[in-house]
Amino acid sequence: MVAILVTFKHINLLILINACLRLILIGFGVVGQNFAQLILSRSTELYNSFGIKPRVVACADKGGVVTSSEGLDLQRLLRTKRITNSVAHYDKNSRDRNILEVIQEAEAEVVIELTPTNIKDGEPGRTHIISAMKAGKNVITVNKGPLALEFPSLIELAEYNRIAFRFSGTVGGGTPILEFAKRCLKGDRILSFEGILNGTTNYILTQMGEGLTFPEALSDATTKGIAEKDPSLDIDGYDAAAKLVITSNWVLGIKSTIRDVKRIGIKNLDLSDVKMASKNGAAIKLIASCDGENLKVAPKQVSKRDPICVNGTLNAITFVSEHSGQQTIIGKGAGGMETASSVLRDLIEIRNTRSFD
Amino acid sequence: MVAILVTFKHINLLILINACLRLILIGFGVVGQNFAQLILSRSTELYNSFGIKPRVVACADKGGVVTSSEGLDLQRLLRTKRITNSVAHYDKNSRDRNILEVIQEAEAEVVIELTPTNIKDGEPGRTHIISAMKAGKNVITVNKGPLALEFPSLIELAEYNRIAFRFSGTVGGGTPILEFAKRCLKGDRILSFEGILNGTTNYILTQMGEGLTFPEALSDATTKGIAEKDPSLDIDGYDAAAKLVITSNWVLGIKSTIRDVKRIGIKNLDLSDVKMASKNGAAIKLIASCDGENLKVAPKQVSKRDPICVNGTLNAITFVSEHSGQQTIIGKGAGGMETASSVLRDLIEIRNTRSFD
Repeated sequence: MVAILVTFKHINLLILINACLRLILIGFGVVGQNFAQLILSRSTELYNSFGIKPRVVACADKGGVVTSSEGLDLQRLLRTKRITNSVAHYDKNSRDRNILEVIQEAEAEVVIELTPTNIKDGEPGRTHIISAMKAGKNVITVNKGPLALEFPSLIELAEYNRIAFRFSGTVGGGTPILEFAKRCLKGDRILSFEGILNGTTNYILTQMGEGLTFPEALSDATTKGIAEKDPSLDIDGYDAAAKLVITSNWVLGIKSTIRDVKRIGIKNLDLSDVKMASKNGAAIKLIASCDGENLKVAPKQVSKRDPICVNGTLNAITFVSEHSGQQTIIGKGAGGMETASSVLRDLIEIRNTRSFD
Repeated sequence: MVAILVTFKHINLLILINACLRLILIGFGVVGQNFAQLILSRSTELYNSFGIKPRVVACADKGGVVTSSEGLDLQRLLRTKRITNSVAHYDKNSRDRNILEVIQEAEAEVVIELTPTNIKDGEPGRTHIISAMKAGKNVITVNKGPLALEFPSLIELAEYNRIAFRFSGTVGGGTPILEFAKRCLKGDRILSFEGILNGTTNYILTQMGEGLTFPEALSDATTKGIAEKDPSLDIDGYDAAAKLVITSNWVLGIKSTIRDVKRIGIKNLDLSDVKMASKNGAAIKLIASCDGENLKVAPKQVSKRDPICVNGTLNAITFVSEHSGQQTIIGKGAGGMETASSVLRDLIEIRNTRSFD
């Protein structure tokens, strides 16, 4: 229990809150494991500063599902995953249950959906998220697929079921781009934005700026683990388009899906284009932009003096607002611990704005 | 009156709030006039979205003080200022009252202190702010002087008197640097930061990068109205130091004043230093930094690939946090309308977090 004293005029209200926050963790890859480590290492501060005692009552990965109403031992869960590559061997007694059944039946306040992004049909994340919402559970996700494909209807479903739906980590990884736009410019109006929302293509374009051809730069990115074996999601602009859709919906209220994005990737870019840009004091960048109406992802010449002209795997976004001018946010757009920190931010926000039994 | 419906579990509470927010405006220069224009042009939205109906019950400038418990006519106030260069001629009947008396006696919720920054003794802003706090009135300021000289004791006085004290516009102008650091990284810990916090010196250094000597670049900045006639506040690093003190106190909780800052300005910089930096792919920037303990303002070589290496009058700051990595915010550090928009943000925040009769 956490006691919070609220003073309103001359009335003091002592509110007692059960600090225990029961979580269902779906997907236990890099972000999931970093999140588990984060809540382990920060447990005292989470309790003292935010009144949160997270208890993971279920965890699922491709190998199976483990549950415990008393809360799983996170150290043991991490060890099991490391040694056997699945959480399923956590416990001899743990039954191999269906995750949808667990979402439906387990007593928990928040479902954290961390399965990989699938831009084709959003699965399996889409079904997990919808099931959780219908079961009245709050949802946090870093999975861009379901949001890119059906953002407006997911928001509606969340509102209909009166649950909180948070997805800070889908745009910018640990860099709080969505929070900045929503919380830091109150009373002003954001009119448009543009940015570099994909680190892999920005790395490739930076290398091309150093004289590598596209195939050479891609191969370099693959060797360094920056590009996936199937790099289409990045180089064809799908990943940037997904983040563009999420930001346009959330920040500008433009009801759209990835089908509304005019999208051109970088694989047909010629080294001569990059050299020409360089001569003009510019660089070619894959720019995702929303002018308040149209959504577009395409390579574009950006002046090297423009703050969004960042290099390597960095992400950058410039918001144009009516009165407070232009603001640019720059940060690492990915990373396991960085993205896990965004999940924790979402969890703290849900704790602060919701009441639980 | 504004009605707000709060739903808590199965209980619906209808809260009626008096939307009228009475303001005392001290200082009616560029920021003050832009603020008046802003609340005029956004009045419908302020009421509909935030339940705010601002009413300026007093306004003071060097020429005198005008008051009206029903609220001054802002159009007329702006016109009077434009034509006569003082608000004092607003009304034949308005008595020339002492501003400290008005702060003490007028019925108002918020005092907005917008007099010019004085880095020597903080006056007259310091006395206005302290008087307002002692009179139990919430305070918004964009005046860096009092904060640079005695941040810790002003915060204590605000807490003792249970009033809100906001100063978003003191750092970054319209760019919400302080809000970003306070609100967007919850659950994480900011360890250190460094940045370009003064636009005038950044303009001069950018011009020196183009080959101008320091006196030539300063003269150019003065001609364009970027530098003041007495440029010492900027070029000796006092302005950057003041912003450094405010950010270190507010974001990192380091109780400090401008006397704790190790400060070196830019006037002894030689063009050869700038040229040498350029050869290394870097630029000389006036960097304000806090490593978690020490406060420093000094010229420093910054790689042109570093996101904070911005040009012209731009400001930039990089926060280093424990889990979510490094984030850089870039924006215009000044401007009348931009800074006025930060005053409005502070007002909305005070409305959202305080209750008034």
